[in-house]
Amino acid sequence: MSDTLFDFGMVGLGVMGRNLLLNMADHGFAVSGLDLDPNKALALENEADKGKPVKGTTNAEEFIHSLRKPRALMLLVPAGKAVDAAIASLLPYLEPGDIVIDGGNSYFPDTDRRVVELGERGLHFFGMGISGGEKGARFGPSMMPGGDRQAYERLRPIFEAVAAKVNGEPCVTFLGNGSAGNYVKMVHNGIEYGIMQLIAEIYDFMKRGLGLNDDPLEQVFSDWNQTEVQSFLIEITGEILKKSDDVTGQRLVNVISDRARQKGTGKWTSQNAMDLQVPLPTVDMAVTMRDLSAYKDERVLAAQQLGGISANAAADAGNQEVINQLRSAFYFAMLATYAQGFVQLRTASKAYNYELDLQEVAKIWRGGCIIRAACLEDIRQAFATNPDLPNLLLDANIGAALHQHQADVRAIVKLTIEKGIPMPALLSTISYFDAYRSAILPTNLIQAQRDYFGAHTYERIDQSGIFHTQWN
Amino acid sequence: MSDTLFDFGMVGLGVMGRNLLLNMADHGFAVSGLDLDPNKALALENEADKGKPVKGTTNAEEFIHSLRKPRALMLLVPAGKAVDAAIASLLPYLEPGDIVIDGGNSYFPDTDRRVVELGERGLHFFGMGISGGEKGARFGPSMMPGGDRQAYERLRPIFEAVAAKVNGEPCVTFLGNGSAGNYVKMVHNGIEYGIMQLIAEIYDFMKRGLGLNDDPLEQVFSDWNQTEVQSFLIEITGEILKKSDDVTGQRLVNVISDRARQKGTGKWTSQNAMDLQVPLPTVDMAVTMRDLSAYKDERVLAAQQLGGISANAAADAGNQEVINQLRSAFYFAMLATYAQGFVQLRTASKAYNYELDLQEVAKIWRGGCIIRAACLEDIRQAFATNPDLPNLLLDANIGAALHQHQADVRAIVKLTIEKGIPMPALLSTISYFDAYRSAILPTNLIQAQRDYFGAHTYERIDQSGIFHTQWN
Repeated sequence: MSDTLFDFGMVGLGVMGRNLLLNMADHGFAVSGLDLDPNKALALENEADKGKPVKGTTNAEEFIHSLRKPRALMLLVPAGKAVDAAIASLLPYLEPGDIVIDGGNSYFPDTDRRVVELGERGLHFFGMGISGGEKGARFGPSMMPGGDRQAYERLRPIFEAVAAKVNGEPCVTFLGNGSAGNYVKMVHNGIEYGIMQLIAEIYDFMKRGLGLNDDPLEQVFSDWNQTEVQSFLIEITGEILKKSDDVTGQRLVNVISDRARQKGTGKWTSQNAMDLQVPLPTVDMAVTMRDLSAYKDERVLAAQQLGGISANAAADAGNQEVINQLRSAFYFAMLATYAQGFVQLRTASKAYNYELDLQEVAKIWRGGCIIRAACLEDIRQAFATNPDLPNLLLDANIGAALHQHQADVRAIVKLTIEKGIPMPALLSTISYFDAYRSAILPTNLIQAQRDYFGAHTYERIDQSGIFHTQWN
Repeated sequence: MSDTLFDFGMVGLGVMGRNLLLNMADHGFAVSGLDLDPNKALALENEADKGKPVKGTTNAEEFIHSLRKPRALMLLVPAGKAVDAAIASLLPYLEPGDIVIDGGNSYFPDTDRRVVELGERGLHFFGMGISGGEKGARFGPSMMPGGDRQAYERLRPIFEAVAAKVNGEPCVTFLGNGSAGNYVKMVHNGIEYGIMQLIAEIYDFMKRGLGLNDDPLEQVFSDWNQTEVQSFLIEITGEILKKSDDVTGQRLVNVISDRARQKGTGKWTSQNAMDLQVPLPTVDMAVTMRDLSAYKDERVLAAQQLGGISANAAADAGNQEVINQLRSAFYFAMLATYAQGFVQLRTASKAYNYELDLQEVAKIWRGGCIIRAACLEDIRQAFATNPDLPNLLLDANIGAALHQHQADVRAIVKLTIEKGIPMPALLSTISYFDAYRSAILPTNLIQAQRDYFGAHTYERIDQSGIFHTQWN
């Protein structure tokens, strides 16, 4: 098939890259992949159905020249210097009008820089978040492209074909200018951190607080996935809790180390939220708890020295009412976590001129991605009703749901505080709710303190202007 | 006094700069100040006692040449470009061996850059945090210098003379290399954010939750300053709550707007803690709550739509037992906030080669600065006992204090959650405590989830190595 001009090219043929190309081939596109490792190039061809136009190569020039113009190619290489190196190695062969897509989790300011750098050569650079893992790449991911709106038309048929579908609608759309795609994926990952931490806390509470063991734990999450909290992360939690370990015969999760790792996207989300002055306490706490998990030796020591309040599991052992309250609390916290993330997107869209349509973001998150959940349809609906909704907490339906579930959150917080079992993300989330619905916050005192010790001035509620007082 | 060679020079003669020079003059040093505004240069001379060697000028060359060599001069100008501009304007007149001190709240990486840039010219650059506000500058601040240890000897007599004293010991010491001084001041400010937010929450709870009005509120804080929570911020809170407004006759604090402002040092502290993977949840939440306070219009709307749980102040009106629990909870949270900050300092010291002595940091924070508090002597003692203490929670005395006070925190959390009054920083602090003393955290589940959807691998508790599982 040396005469084929390929529809799409992939640089970096790890499992994700190969799977995405195979997905495209399934949908009738001719695809080519480049990797410096000949084994990976070969693996791509071997994994493809015979007769399908799928080619792997280690030769950059041959790779580029085999693509249909304007060329469309994606980089799936580690974020950072590897992206710049890959671009540099391809530049000699690229021509104006060609499109280069970064499909990794790049830091969004890097994407903005590359949009400018490649734009100077007449090339279109896209940052595109892809979510769904290896399986998603193969059978339908959620994809979050940002870049040049017109150039996207060259990509649209391919991406819409391979993306996950919800009610027949593809989980991909052009999101906005510049680094919009990377940014939306970053916030997606921040929300992912938040929801994962919330699930971990609930799992901990059921184990240590209610004394549930493996079988009922697994059953709870399987059951929950048939309810209003239906979501990919709840679904896989049930599957994880079911999995046995070949070595010990125990459930595998019980022999996994509790030192959590992270690749930085959650941290970026929190740090950038602080730059934008967007409150994101649930994600902040999720990042913090991954950090804290690494202090294993200190925690073991502290447990000996500072233990004291008994978890007292017996009192509520297997209490179905408490389990129901936990589900209700999780639903509340999940909604409030999305709410925080969407405020960040709205704020970033203004700050960085992304021109995001939040309804579209909710729409493409409904399927394929890690944070897909039944409630995203309600969220999509909220932004359909009011595209300028400042916060999902102010949507009538979602607000009513939160209002209805808050009592269960409060019941759980009181229990967990009494037992001394940490549920930091859940506590941060109810704090967010209670602070957001406070017409008056005590920050007037903070302004007074700042003026007292630093002459930082303050504003008044009864007249405009800037005031300073000699306090003592 | 044209023949005097001045001991110390100040660039930027705002109130802080003038006060610090007048403080030096009080201690027998000849001082000179430079400001482009002749009124400020004049104000310096007018405010000085007659006959004291205090000179103000608008001429940079004259200013530099009037200083005793090696020259010692401080910049007190706004952080950022103004510092670089001031340095550039002075460079032509400076000579190798001269010392330039930045006394503002500069972002610490800027200080490291300037240390290198000025070092290439044989100049010593210091970043020095100064805390205590205008009054502190005049009568005894806490000062946090970092830079070159040997060059500090030129500054030591002056700084030790003007600094606040506690038990005869000056609240200044050479802290460490490079940007160590700015860094320690940044963390100081982060802790300040945390403690201010905690006080604001307690004030709010007493108002909305216990129905306390102006007189008893003021009395509570005045009383508290005679107890274990004795501190500058509690002291000024009592004074603030006492202050009447000339316009309305009400207490002034009641007419101050609750939109809080910030200058960024708290945010930097939180963002950098995330870079260092140091858990700092109390400060994170304080930053978040200042951000949230700005959403005033949305909060007013949300209060109408999402109100519902009554604060029910009547049930606990003026309840002295609850007030005592609040004090106890504040003490707990204040200690745990310092603990978080000191972990950050310890971690940064390793990451940035500051070679900080944490006992010295606690020592110079005991007086002069905004976060001075009686408990800093206990903290100093903890690091004196064990300079390598990983976390103050693991000190026997502080651990015992936290253990003793935790029940009161839990009582308050249960009350405030029931009333629906936000106490976000307090909740984050008890979360920190409960998570830190958990030998086993549920982050094993998070690792399993990451491996399930992203093939991110995991570690096991029973054997070393990196593992990946095909979960379904």
